[in-house]
Amino acid sequence: MAPSAEIICVGTELLLGEILNRNAQFLAQELARLGIPHYYQTVVGDNPVRMKRAIAVACQRSGLLIFTGGLGPTPDDLTTAVLADFFDAPLVERPEIWADITQKFAHRGLPPSESNRKQALLPRGAAILPNPTGSAPGLIWHPREGLTILTFPGVPREMHRMWQETAVPYLISQGYGQQPIYSQVLRFWGIPESVLAEKVAPFLDLTRPTVAPYAGEGEVRLRVSTVAASQAEAATWIDPVVAQIKAICGIHYYGCDDETLASVVGALLGEQGQTLAVAESCTGGGIGHQITVTPGSSAYFLGGIVAYDNSLKQALLGVEPQTLALEGAVSAAVAEQMAVGVRSRLHTTWGLSTTGIAGPEGGTPEKPVGLVYIGLAGPDGVQSLKCEFGAHRGRDWIRLVTVLTALDTVRRSLLSARAQG
Amino acid sequence: MAPSAEIICVGTELLLGEILNRNAQFLAQELARLGIPHYYQTVVGDNPVRMKRAIAVACQRSGLLIFTGGLGPTPDDLTTAVLADFFDAPLVERPEIWADITQKFAHRGLPPSESNRKQALLPRGAAILPNPTGSAPGLIWHPREGLTILTFPGVPREMHRMWQETAVPYLISQGYGQQPIYSQVLRFWGIPESVLAEKVAPFLDLTRPTVAPYAGEGEVRLRVSTVAASQAEAATWIDPVVAQIKAICGIHYYGCDDETLASVVGALLGEQGQTLAVAESCTGGGIGHQITVTPGSSAYFLGGIVAYDNSLKQALLGVEPQTLALEGAVSAAVAEQMAVGVRSRLHTTWGLSTTGIAGPEGGTPEKPVGLVYIGLAGPDGVQSLKCEFGAHRGRDWIRLVTVLTALDTVRRSLLSARAQG
Repeated sequence: MAPSAEIICVGTELLLGEILNRNAQFLAQELARLGIPHYYQTVVGDNPVRMKRAIAVACQRSGLLIFTGGLGPTPDDLTTAVLADFFDAPLVERPEIWADITQKFAHRGLPPSESNRKQALLPRGAAILPNPTGSAPGLIWHPREGLTILTFPGVPREMHRMWQETAVPYLISQGYGQQPIYSQVLRFWGIPESVLAEKVAPFLDLTRPTVAPYAGEGEVRLRVSTVAASQAEAATWIDPVVAQIKAICGIHYYGCDDETLASVVGALLGEQGQTLAVAESCTGGGIGHQITVTPGSSAYFLGGIVAYDNSLKQALLGVEPQTLALEGAVSAAVAEQMAVGVRSRLHTTWGLSTTGIAGPEGGTPEKPVGLVYIGLAGPDGVQSLKCEFGAHRGRDWIRLVTVLTALDTVRRSLLSARAQG
Repeated sequence: MAPSAEIICVGTELLLGEILNRNAQFLAQELARLGIPHYYQTVVGDNPVRMKRAIAVACQRSGLLIFTGGLGPTPDDLTTAVLADFFDAPLVERPEIWADITQKFAHRGLPPSESNRKQALLPRGAAILPNPTGSAPGLIWHPREGLTILTFPGVPREMHRMWQETAVPYLISQGYGQQPIYSQVLRFWGIPESVLAEKVAPFLDLTRPTVAPYAGEGEVRLRVSTVAASQAEAATWIDPVVAQIKAICGIHYYGCDDETLASVVGALLGEQGQTLAVAESCTGGGIGHQITVTPGSSAYFLGGIVAYDNSLKQALLGVEPQTLALEGAVSAAVAEQMAVGVRSRLHTTWGLSTTGIAGPEGGTPEKPVGLVYIGLAGPDGVQSLKCEFGAHRGRDWIRLVTVLTALDTVRRSLLSARAQG
C-alpha cells in the first residue's frame, strides 16, 4: 500500500480569504483519479515558523507531501527555503534553472531581476520539477526514508501542467496509482438535480460502479466511477451503466467529461456542415467567446453582432423600430428579429440571439430582472424561448445561464433536425 | 491578544475534489474582517480516527476551532459525536432541538426520520448554535480552559446565516474582533511580478502596514494591510503607503480591490462621456462580455462585431481585401482597419480590435501561435500593438491576456488623453 498524500497549500492570501483554494480541489481530484489515498489538507501562511509546524505534523501522518505556493521571487515566497531548513539540507544554486529563467526573460526582451535568483536554489539532493511556462520550478525530493515531497507554484495553470507532464509519470514510476479510479462524468442541462436523482435513483445504490450526482453552475452531473486495473477493465463496469442512464435521461444528457455545451454544439454543426452566427445583447459577446473556446471553431462559427445598445439592434440587425417601441427590447419579437437579422446578414444556417435584463437595475414588474428571451432562426423558420431566471442569484449567474441555455437551444434544434432528417 | 482561529472542514467530498472549499474562503474572509488571527486550515474526511488526530493537532496550536461539515443525519456525519468522544463528554439529547427539527419537518408535511434524532444530541456543557434554515444546529462549546469550538453544517447558505446571526455577536461578546485587519489590494497590469517587487522593495519590509505581492492571471497585485480599530485609523496607515506606491508605479497601477480593467475603462469612459465599440476576431466576443460584466455598461459600451471569419472583416468592418491578401488577417494593418471600421460604423469615440492566432493550430514560423495585434481607433487616429504571448501557456490564456491587454490599451489611451486634455 502506497503511503498517503497530504496537500499543503502555502499562502497568506488563502488565510485572508482573498483567493479560493482551487489548487487543493485540482490536486484532490487528481489523487482520487490516480487512486492515491489522501486524508488531510493543510493551509498555512507565508510564515516560516508556522510552515515548519505544519511540515512536522504532515510528515508524521502522510508519506507524500504536495506543496503549492511560495515558489515566487519575492521575500514572502518561502517554501523551498523552509523545506531545506526543516530537513537540514543546504540550498544549492542549479545553473540549469538559472539558465532557463534567463532564457524565459530574454524571450520577453527583459533581463531577469536579482530577486529571481533565489528561484534557482534547491535543497541538495532534490530533483528539479520543471515548470515549462513560468519562472519558478518545483522540486521532487526524498529528504528521508519513506517521505516524498513535491512542490508546485500557486499559479494554477503552471501547476496543472507541471502536475500532468512530470508529477503524474513520476508518481506512477514510483508505484503510486496502481489501482486508479476511473470515472466518467455525465453532464445534463435543463433538468433539476432532484428530478434527475429520482429518474436514476436505482443507480445511486450501486457499489460498482458508484453513481453520484452533483450540481454545477446551472448544470447537473453524474459521476460514474470504479476502481480498476486499466481503462479497459473500467469500461466493462462503467459503459453499461452509462448507456442505461443515457437512455433514461434522453435529450437532457448533453455530453461527458470535458465536453461543454459549446463543444457539443460545435461538433454537431461540423458534422452537418452547418454554420452559426450570434446576435447578443445581454450576454455582450459571451456566446461567441464560449463557442470560440474550442480550437477550430472557425469551421462553423462565423461571428456575430453584439447589439448591446438598442440603436445597433436596428442599424446592424434590422430589428424594426416599431417592434422595439411596442414590445420593448426584451421581448420575443425582438429576439426573433435579431436571430433572423444576423442569420440573413451573415449568411449562416443558424442565427442565435439573446436579449434580457441581467440587472441588478432595469427590472420592472412586467419585465423583472432575470427575464431573458433567446431567439433561434434556422432553415425552418424562427422560434424564441422565454426564460425567467429570477434576480436572486445575480447578474453574472443570469448571464452565464443565458449563454448556456442559448447553446442548449441550438443543441436541441440540431438534434431534432438530425432525428427528422 | 485573542487566541488564533483554525478552520477545520470535514468531508470526504473535499478530499475527493468533488466540491470547491468555498466555506474555508468565507470563514477566512470573515475572520480577517473581524481581525481574528487565523494561521491554519485543515481538511479531513468523515473518519473518526483521522478527525481526532486533526482535533489533537488543532487544539495544540489554535484556541478557536471552527468546524464545517459533518452535522447531517447520515451515518457519515460524525463531527458532534467525535468531538464529544475526544473531549470525553457524554452526548445528551436536547429536547428543544428535537422539537425544532420536528416542527421544521411538519412545515414540509413530513415526519422527521429516525436518523434525524442524532442531530438533537450535543455534548454535555455545549450551547446550541441555532440553524434557522436547516435541520442541523451547530454548537458553541468550551471543552477546556482557553479553547472554544464552534460547529456549522457544510451547506454554505445555512452556515453563512448561522455565522452572521449567532457566531459573530458571540465572538464579539467574548472579546474577539476588537482589532480587525483592514487591507487594500492594488492591481497592476503590464509589469512582471519581479520588476514590481524591485520597484517597491523598501515597502515589502514594512511592518505597519505590511505590503505583500502576489501574481494573478497575467496581473500582479500588492496587498497593503494593517490591524486597526477602525477604517479611519487603518486609512492613516495605509493611504500614505498606497499613495507612494502608486506614484512609483505610475501607469502600471490600474485599480484597487474589486476593480477590474473592464470596470476601470468603463469608469474612465463614463467620466469623459465617451463610448466604445469592439471588433473582435481571436477573442470571439470576450472583450464585450468582460465590459458588460459591469452593470450600467450600456452608458458607454454600444456593442460590436465579432468577425471571427475573414469574410466578416470585409463585409461588416470594411477591411480591404488586398490588405487581407497581402498582410494576412493577423497583421497590424488589419487590426487598424478593424478598429477604424467598427468606430465609424457604430459612431463611437473609440474602436477596439483584436486579431491573432490563439492556437493550438494555425501558427507559422513568421506568425506563431500567440501572435496578436490589438488595434485602437480614436479621435486622434489609429494605433496598433503587436503582442507575442507565446504558445506555451495555451489557447485560453492567450485569449484571456488578449482581452485584458486590449482593455489596458484603452485605459492607457484614455489616461494619456486626459493628461493632455
